[in-house]
Amino acid sequence: MFEFTLHGTEGAARAGTLRLPHGEVPTPAFMPVGTHAAVRGLHPDEVRRTGARIILGNTYHLHLRPGEDVVQALGGLHRFTTWDRPMLTDSGGFQVFSLEGLRKISEQGVEFQSHIDGAIHTITPEKAMEIQWALGADVAMAFDHVVPGQATYDHAEEGMERTLRWLDRCRRRHGELAEGAAVRQTLWPIVQGGTHTELRRRSLQGTLDRGPWTGIAVGGLSVGEPKPVMHRIMEELEPALPADVPRYLMGVGFPDDLLEGIARGVDLFDCVAATRNGRHGSAWTSQGKVNIRGAGLRMSAAPLDADCDCETCRTFSRAYLRHLFQAEEMLGLRLLSIHNVRFLVRLGECARAAILDGTFTRWSREWLERYHSKGTAE
Amino acid sequence: MFEFTLHGTEGAARAGTLRLPHGEVPTPAFMPVGTHAAVRGLHPDEVRRTGARIILGNTYHLHLRPGEDVVQALGGLHRFTTWDRPMLTDSGGFQVFSLEGLRKISEQGVEFQSHIDGAIHTITPEKAMEIQWALGADVAMAFDHVVPGQATYDHAEEGMERTLRWLDRCRRRHGELAEGAAVRQTLWPIVQGGTHTELRRRSLQGTLDRGPWTGIAVGGLSVGEPKPVMHRIMEELEPALPADVPRYLMGVGFPDDLLEGIARGVDLFDCVAATRNGRHGSAWTSQGKVNIRGAGLRMSAAPLDADCDCETCRTFSRAYLRHLFQAEEMLGLRLLSIHNVRFLVRLGECARAAILDGTFTRWSREWLERYHSKGTAE
Repeated sequence: MFEFTLHGTEGAARAGTLRLPHGEVPTPAFMPVGTHAAVRGLHPDEVRRTGARIILGNTYHLHLRPGEDVVQALGGLHRFTTWDRPMLTDSGGFQVFSLEGLRKISEQGVEFQSHIDGAIHTITPEKAMEIQWALGADVAMAFDHVVPGQATYDHAEEGMERTLRWLDRCRRRHGELAEGAAVRQTLWPIVQGGTHTELRRRSLQGTLDRGPWTGIAVGGLSVGEPKPVMHRIMEELEPALPADVPRYLMGVGFPDDLLEGIARGVDLFDCVAATRNGRHGSAWTSQGKVNIRGAGLRMSAAPLDADCDCETCRTFSRAYLRHLFQAEEMLGLRLLSIHNVRFLVRLGECARAAILDGTFTRWSREWLERYHSKGTAE
Repeated sequence: MFEFTLHGTEGAARAGTLRLPHGEVPTPAFMPVGTHAAVRGLHPDEVRRTGARIILGNTYHLHLRPGEDVVQALGGLHRFTTWDRPMLTDSGGFQVFSLEGLRKISEQGVEFQSHIDGAIHTITPEKAMEIQWALGADVAMAFDHVVPGQATYDHAEEGMERTLRWLDRCRRRHGELAEGAAVRQTLWPIVQGGTHTELRRRSLQGTLDRGPWTGIAVGGLSVGEPKPVMHRIMEELEPALPADVPRYLMGVGFPDDLLEGIARGVDLFDCVAATRNGRHGSAWTSQGKVNIRGAGLRMSAAPLDADCDCETCRTFSRAYLRHLFQAEEMLGLRLLSIHNVRFLVRLGECARAAILDGTFTRWSREWLERYHSKGTAE
């Protein structure tokens, strides 16, 4: 359990398989985000049909609503949602550190006000483990101190070192919770350090010193820093990352970010952009980004993306999708979200096939050139 | 085509089959309403899986958005929406007469302001036929002058007589449109006359004099008059309605309305309550009405309705559904709408089986007693 098998590499890019209690995850893979115990707007069956093999749940949101006690009483996140494939929960670190002005940080943990009702909550490393244990995902994430993309060296160092100290506490508490239980959950650490090479290296070394781990995440990227900085950090970290565990680049990303990340040795990604853009009427396609409300689509019998195999593209016309958005009919948000999720899931599938073929570098370069030439970069 | 076969009766209640270009409709039947070329919040596949055999489209809404020219260019409502079973469009009469203060009525037709952008539109009987012909449903409805449930005799008489004059114009224009075409659409008239027995009788007689028809609708009920008045009108009309065509009671209704209507000889119903209530978190169940936000459901592993065979009840717990509503996750609205639609569709199926068994009267009385005892009457 929790094994990772590498089937092939091309440069830093890797094709593997991750074994988790609820099934296998071929990598590289995009993980759709199920914030409120549902991938926004989608039925678990629809998410399955996009080909997604693992989804993410948000500890912060689920702790506030419905509360981990409810989820646990209903048999855990898998039974609660009926999603029967692997699942990962984040630790809530990213969310609570985003609550600028509504949270107090101490060595003990983070006290914050709920964005829903203003009630005071505290998440400590131990509490983050207890919540995630109750939620019962296959993978729990360590509780980390996240700093903004523009954080100074000193600020980033403070967050990075605290993340390491908290990692000790997470590991201890997770071990206690798992004791005696047939272990169905693993814990992954998060590398922090902002945009500072030396801090990132120290964070990774400190993390590995506390190992072994069944997976390693890189956090605190895609939080406001320029994309080339994110690429540099990943390039600097990559040679020091153990080859035998999956690497998860948190909160990333857009289609080009997936390919850039895969080229730099990343195996797992998550991002809300697929569903968020879908709800806003924006779709990624092989021919560039499409704004579904565009007047030019009014009479278009063509599918959203002729090269796409998703349910939406196989079934409906652009004209119908446009109409649903114009009429503010919920079905439209859903159909575009399905397409965008499938678009990223398939990008992972295609990258994997290309890596195994030894054609990833060329395929990826051509794909990115086409993508950027269409003016679709975000 | 457009044949109606009666398989059995019990008192005034009838079990039949209506043959339409896109398939057969066993009756009695509830028709879900697809206002914006989609049953609100639902995918056509989901509507099919509720067992619905025919759905309704709204001419008023589709004329304004996306416009019948778009629907026609995309191959008609069936191809546009991918709903491949029978479909009926209303005439827009009910909607434009509801635009109190925003419409001017003349013998020619109704001039009104769009509720979307304030633009001026005119619907005449001829125009209503042209729009519906372009939409291409199996059944088009005559353009009628609808009066409120409390309309005086004189007001109701004016509307009823105009409806008859307009029926002549509808029939003429529909005949012209159908000429030379392989006829794939039939036209049904609408009986008006408010709550006034004599006017209803004259309306029906005037309608039959202009026949023959393949179906007859009763309109202008469930528009504010007390329910016993609606029942009385149906009882008074029933003996004079031709037995060999389906009777459609427009805009009705709630579960008890279906059974009360079926007992009075009605074959077809439509109403937005199933999806509207579903979006608001209210579900009809065999144990009474359930407010899905109720605190008592927080930990409930039970299905919404243990006696229901819908996808929602077969899959999810009350606790999960409650959570989705608390978290304002769109999936919740959808799952409750699916349940409510299936609830009414199944009520039609059960009534049909009971009529064919000769047990309708007893079954219906027991069902209504249980329903009312749970305090679920609206």
